[in-house]
Amino acid sequence: MFATVLLLLVALCAQGGHGEEKREEAQRPGHVTVVIVGGTGDLAKKYLWRGFFELYVNKVKGGNTFSFYGGGLSPADKGKPALFEILKALSCSKDVSQERCALLKEQFLRLTQYRELKTLENYQKLAKDIEQDLKQEGMTEAGRLFYLSVPAFAYADIADKINSSCRPTSGAWLRVVLEKPFGHDFRSAQVLASQLGGSLKDEEMYRIDHYLGKQVVAKILPFRKENKKFLDPIWNKHHIERVEIVLKETLDAKGRIAFYDQYGVIRDVLQNHLTEVMTLLSMKLPKNLSNSEEVLNNKLQIFRSLLPVGKKQAVVGQYQAYKTEVQQELNKTKDHVSITPTFAAVLAYIDDAQYEGIPILMISGKMLDERVGYARIVFKNDIFCVQNHNSVHCKPKQIVFYFGHGSLQYPAVLVSKNLFKPVLKDAEWKEVTEHKDVNVLGLPISDYYVHTPKEQREAYSELISHIFAGRKNSFISTENLLASWGLWTPLLSSLATSFPRIYPGGAENGDLLDICVKGKEISYNSEVVIISNDQMGGTSAKGFQVMQGKFRGTDMVSAWSEELVNRLAEDLQEAAEAAVRENGVFHLALSGGSSPLALFHRLALHHFSFPWRETHVWMVDERCVPPSEAESNFNTLHDHLLQHVRIPYYNIHPMPVQLNQRLCVEEDRGALLYENEIRALVNGSSFHFVLLGVGYDSHTASLFPGSKWDEHGEKLVVMTESPAKPHQRMSLTFSAINQARRVAVLVMGKGKHELVTQLSRVKDNSDKWPVTGVKPASGTLVWYIDYDALLG
Amino acid sequence: MFATVLLLLVALCAQGGHGEEKREEAQRPGHVTVVIVGGTGDLAKKYLWRGFFELYVNKVKGGNTFSFYGGGLSPADKGKPALFEILKALSCSKDVSQERCALLKEQFLRLTQYRELKTLENYQKLAKDIEQDLKQEGMTEAGRLFYLSVPAFAYADIADKINSSCRPTSGAWLRVVLEKPFGHDFRSAQVLASQLGGSLKDEEMYRIDHYLGKQVVAKILPFRKENKKFLDPIWNKHHIERVEIVLKETLDAKGRIAFYDQYGVIRDVLQNHLTEVMTLLSMKLPKNLSNSEEVLNNKLQIFRSLLPVGKKQAVVGQYQAYKTEVQQELNKTKDHVSITPTFAAVLAYIDDAQYEGIPILMISGKMLDERVGYARIVFKNDIFCVQNHNSVHCKPKQIVFYFGHGSLQYPAVLVSKNLFKPVLKDAEWKEVTEHKDVNVLGLPISDYYVHTPKEQREAYSELISHIFAGRKNSFISTENLLASWGLWTPLLSSLATSFPRIYPGGAENGDLLDICVKGKEISYNSEVVIISNDQMGGTSAKGFQVMQGKFRGTDMVSAWSEELVNRLAEDLQEAAEAAVRENGVFHLALSGGSSPLALFHRLALHHFSFPWRETHVWMVDERCVPPSEAESNFNTLHDHLLQHVRIPYYNIHPMPVQLNQRLCVEEDRGALLYENEIRALVNGSSFHFVLLGVGYDSHTASLFPGSKWDEHGEKLVVMTESPAKPHQRMSLTFSAINQARRVAVLVMGKGKHELVTQLSRVKDNSDKWPVTGVKPASGTLVWYIDYDALLG
Repeated sequence: MFATVLLLLVALCAQGGHGEEKREEAQRPGHVTVVIVGGTGDLAKKYLWRGFFELYVNKVKGGNTFSFYGGGLSPADKGKPALFEILKALSCSKDVSQERCALLKEQFLRLTQYRELKTLENYQKLAKDIEQDLKQEGMTEAGRLFYLSVPAFAYADIADKINSSCRPTSGAWLRVVLEKPFGHDFRSAQVLASQLGGSLKDEEMYRIDHYLGKQVVAKILPFRKENKKFLDPIWNKHHIERVEIVLKETLDAKGRIAFYDQYGVIRDVLQNHLTEVMTLLSMKLPKNLSNSEEVLNNKLQIFRSLLPVGKKQAVVGQYQAYKTEVQQELNKTKDHVSITPTFAAVLAYIDDAQYEGIPILMISGKMLDERVGYARIVFKNDIFCVQNHNSVHCKPKQIVFYFGHGSLQYPAVLVSKNLFKPVLKDAEWKEVTEHKDVNVLGLPISDYYVHTPKEQREAYSELISHIFAGRKNSFISTENLLASWGLWTPLLSSLATSFPRIYPGGAENGDLLDICVKGKEISYNSEVVIISNDQMGGTSAKGFQVMQGKFRGTDMVSAWSEELVNRLAEDLQEAAEAAVRENGVFHLALSGGSSPLALFHRLALHHFSFPWRETHVWMVDERCVPPSEAESNFNTLHDHLLQHVRIPYYNIHPMPVQLNQRLCVEEDRGALLYENEIRALVNGSSFHFVLLGVGYDSHTASLFPGSKWDEHGEKLVVMTESPAKPHQRMSLTFSAINQARRVAVLVMGKGKHELVTQLSRVKDNSDKWPVTGVKPASGTLVWYIDYDALLG
Repeated sequence: MFATVLLLLVALCAQGGHGEEKREEAQRPGHVTVVIVGGTGDLAKKYLWRGFFELYVNKVKGGNTFSFYGGGLSPADKGKPALFEILKALSCSKDVSQERCALLKEQFLRLTQYRELKTLENYQKLAKDIEQDLKQEGMTEAGRLFYLSVPAFAYADIADKINSSCRPTSGAWLRVVLEKPFGHDFRSAQVLASQLGGSLKDEEMYRIDHYLGKQVVAKILPFRKENKKFLDPIWNKHHIERVEIVLKETLDAKGRIAFYDQYGVIRDVLQNHLTEVMTLLSMKLPKNLSNSEEVLNNKLQIFRSLLPVGKKQAVVGQYQAYKTEVQQELNKTKDHVSITPTFAAVLAYIDDAQYEGIPILMISGKMLDERVGYARIVFKNDIFCVQNHNSVHCKPKQIVFYFGHGSLQYPAVLVSKNLFKPVLKDAEWKEVTEHKDVNVLGLPISDYYVHTPKEQREAYSELISHIFAGRKNSFISTENLLASWGLWTPLLSSLATSFPRIYPGGAENGDLLDICVKGKEISYNSEVVIISNDQMGGTSAKGFQVMQGKFRGTDMVSAWSEELVNRLAEDLQEAAEAAVRENGVFHLALSGGSSPLALFHRLALHHFSFPWRETHVWMVDERCVPPSEAESNFNTLHDHLLQHVRIPYYNIHPMPVQLNQRLCVEEDRGALLYENEIRALVNGSSFHFVLLGVGYDSHTASLFPGSKWDEHGEKLVVMTESPAKPHQRMSLTFSAINQARRVAVLVMGKGKHELVTQLSRVKDNSDKWPVTGVKPASGTLVWYIDYDALLG
């Protein structure tokens, strides 16, 4: 049964390796059993057998022996001929002589057999046969590789069977390869991961993203490392203008709708392929590229630094014919509408000091004008050509990782000649110096240094060789998978009811899908009237003007939430400017909670001339937690506003809930300390502006219902008890609030509608309805209530 | 003598005005006397008489009467014919009929006479004649306008004569117009301003920058205002990629060397013309464009926000033939070398929230390839074209204020069509829709919306009409002048010994003057070997490697200052990363003073992966001043480092020199408070890194010579007395310093050479030589001494 072919072709073998990289090759010699579960399926037919045959050709000289099984649900009489048809078609790479190829193929066919793998018994039988064969031939076992090329719903069950019956004994390795999808959102991915985790150890699982096997994608980190001295000074926000990661397809989803309509382009391409490329481009360069732990860990850091991606960071589209395809393939009626996107453009930002502010565009779609995949880093123009504006210095500068197809037709790494001459220390790559006249992403090919692999290899063949070598850095760890879903799931949820823009497909799309990036948000560049229900509640509502009225006898401003926040921000800036004109300083007291977040963002992103230098920021209330914890009001304020604006450190006044390294201990007298600070710095203890929210129980600041608030007398700051955790709070008193020149109460969201209705009826009673105690003595009070809260 | 021509051409007059703008027109009717001192000079001949003739043509219908004097040093028999030659050549604009022009010119000639204006008597006589004429004709006087078209050294004297003898009586106005140069640096400008201030009130002085009279320059603010709704969202750091303000000349300085060699291109063009354009582009938009006070004030704000411009923000050049021209015109020998620049490119940054990080390039030079002037705002590409990369959306976006000449040949405001369609509410301007096929700054003219003045007017004529109207917003106030010199003087000083790059002139310059912007610094894009003495000390010195040696028995790193700082920054980051790996936190104590500034800049601009989030910053010492004052060590640290990095607020630990709103009062126990904070947060009170400097008297931290430092015992923080003001200090003790894991002492500059020599010889004696008390118990001490300090 086993053939031991020990051809010592060391030179060839080394050439097949990856240059200098230190391989974590599975050194254990002996016999390797490969089982492709789903061995007669499409993927196996197209890529996997080819990949394993290549592995066999390369590795058989390395001291290992092999046996291969194609597993399927069909009985042997149906499965065997199907498998034979696939194997018959295998061919060798060009560097193998015809004669040798025939010999190798014959051996491979002899080593390969079909197996029905359906029941637990089937697996048990397989395991028994493997062990019997091993014993019979007197071979040591090196390991067992199961490649699950089956629908994802079957993973857990198969993993369970492998675990219970097919584990090798005596220290040989077990590796189980999985194909995406790995869940369709964070929750399902977590469930799947935990099911698999019951059967397999993390190091036994190889989650494949075939993009990581593409030669150009695999080249990203080595390229960054080998060209470190050129890249280090420019690989940052000061020099990179933007990053684009693009996969355009011309195909439609026909024939795959049953699968595709459940997933859509974001789950199918962006969550995995494009996200992986993005992390490779931005992750901290590992000291050792073949140290899987370091590679995966550095990738994980990027997920931690990414700004959340929401509805305003995405546009989606759907090609026109998709609707009909769905109706046909899913047997739906003519009025059935699917809103599954077949096109998406998403804008991400890495919020660290190196990359902050660089727009990263991830774009993919079906039925576009061309098939092409690339990642492009566009650099800012840092050259000013005094005389010859057409000089090569003044041309755009970019680095393009070109995955293939498109105008170039082959995979390549391209570097603008006016950027630097890259180093590629890899015998498998060559520089291309003669080209036909072609234009790549805005520049003629002759303006680039071009490097391409000497021989194009299939991504699957590449990854199969990694699995065999036990190299995990090109696979997706559970942690990284969940981190990626953590990024994408909120966006997917928020898009669940969004109607995609319909596009005709192909060249006819014209400018329809062009994208515009403004203030960390993206939109389609051209406006199109879409007739859909979505319109009624959403876009057309923009028609409503900001409304001014009365609420509880004082001024009220109302609008849709976005408009309302814009208006509040404007009013705040106006108040700030007036105060600075008059007093040279603006004292602003801000509340915690989630309502003001949108206001903070508005101020940080749009109000460039806000007089932060003259503004003192005070807290309305604080929870008794350390200020560096997420629960701290100050922490929220810090992360969402203060760190984005240029406000002097000494103008920031957090409440001293932590003193002498302990929290809100009475004898530390934090409240009094804060009160004294206010009295010392704020003229007449009268803040220029106090921003309040209101809770469902009508509390404001940290003044909760059920207390006698007028017992505070003249005190400005007190300790209070919240019914919710953390119970201890520090808060401004009504005394402090009502001395302010201007008080704004911000109320937003449908959830507050009931409260707003109630408040419109009740009389002032600050013990029962604390917010009714807000009555500035000589200042003004304005309610900012959005339409959701006002109208329900 | 006086002609009263009251032609009521109201319609024409309104058309001649500036649309809606509210003019601060000098309402006082009556007689106006104009005196051009230097009335037969070049400027008068070329522009001034023409401007005053135009004024006469326009204003004579407005109810005023005029008389004109051309003053000169020559006696009347020489001056009169010279003046007549000039006046004879005057012509009217196209819209005045030949007949009417002849009449007006005849009148103008009759109203104009030559005067010898040399001695005080000459001026007294002039004044007497003016008053006599007024009396004789029974006219009310409106005002007197003196235009000083003479070398600047004569200003003070003439102003004095005007003041003492030519002031009008009875409330008529006096306006004295001055031409640049207004000094050649801050000091001389201040002296001149104070001399002039002795004779003239600020509102009487009109300092002319003729650039402000150019139609396109004068259009900048109205354009910004009229297109506010389009510009507001994009006129900021998120959208502007860079700003270029360029004045290229083809002429040389021949014939003017005596003047030019004293000034050079920076004083001649950048300090005034380009700076004015820069402020117009960036200043906060005044609510009222004709409110001079607001306009000038808003300009002033920009100067306050500009980052300092130093040697690293400038490159200079000199055309090849200049050397010979200097030798000839100044009668110098063949070995005379002038380093006056005839070309300069300067990089400025406005450090406010709106514009921070936008490179502003100001470039001017003689003997370049073309004559052209423009200001260009280049926007970031915010559109991603999914299919058609050649679509108009994807083209560069820019706004160009084209002052004239160049490829376009006429003044215009150009806005890329893919940006917005501008509004120009001005009857004097028109849109150009038919063009010859010309390329303007990278785009074909058809890609722009183009607006141009219906009629081109001379800058001088325009400004003369402003002077007549008493509008001061197009002139340079004393405050603004000094602010501008405040910006340019440090650069000029630092360039005083710099050798400019020699360029051949014209098209032959090729790429020689191309400029590269990197990390807020600029340089020539191509390297050229310049054989000059400058080379020896400067460039070639880069050859020296960083040197490691021993100083006072412990490790020393030495290098040229820049390299030394880079090395220290690297060592610091390494220490930080190691600490974070080991402890999850990095405790860093930093000194005040000026030495660490370069280090702070290096860290802020180049060390993107510094683990700031995990770093706690402590102070080595502090002065007893409020933390918001410039003298405070914390203030320096804040402005130069903390505000540029993403360090959490609660990781920053300023020394509590201000408690209970008072400074360093013993009973507030600030030192103890800081000590407790250290003991609570820093493991074993052992900082990971302490950065020290050393003073000329060998003090380190705020531990000065002459105290018994070992009396502090275990105390970590103490109050000390400095021999220099402010005397009171708070400082870490040797106890605290010597518990650190790593201590670095940074010593830089020739001024420290003597100290370094002394320190290398003396024994440890911390009372006499405090820095010798730095002896970490179990940590390491490294001296960082630059070659200047080490070698003298």
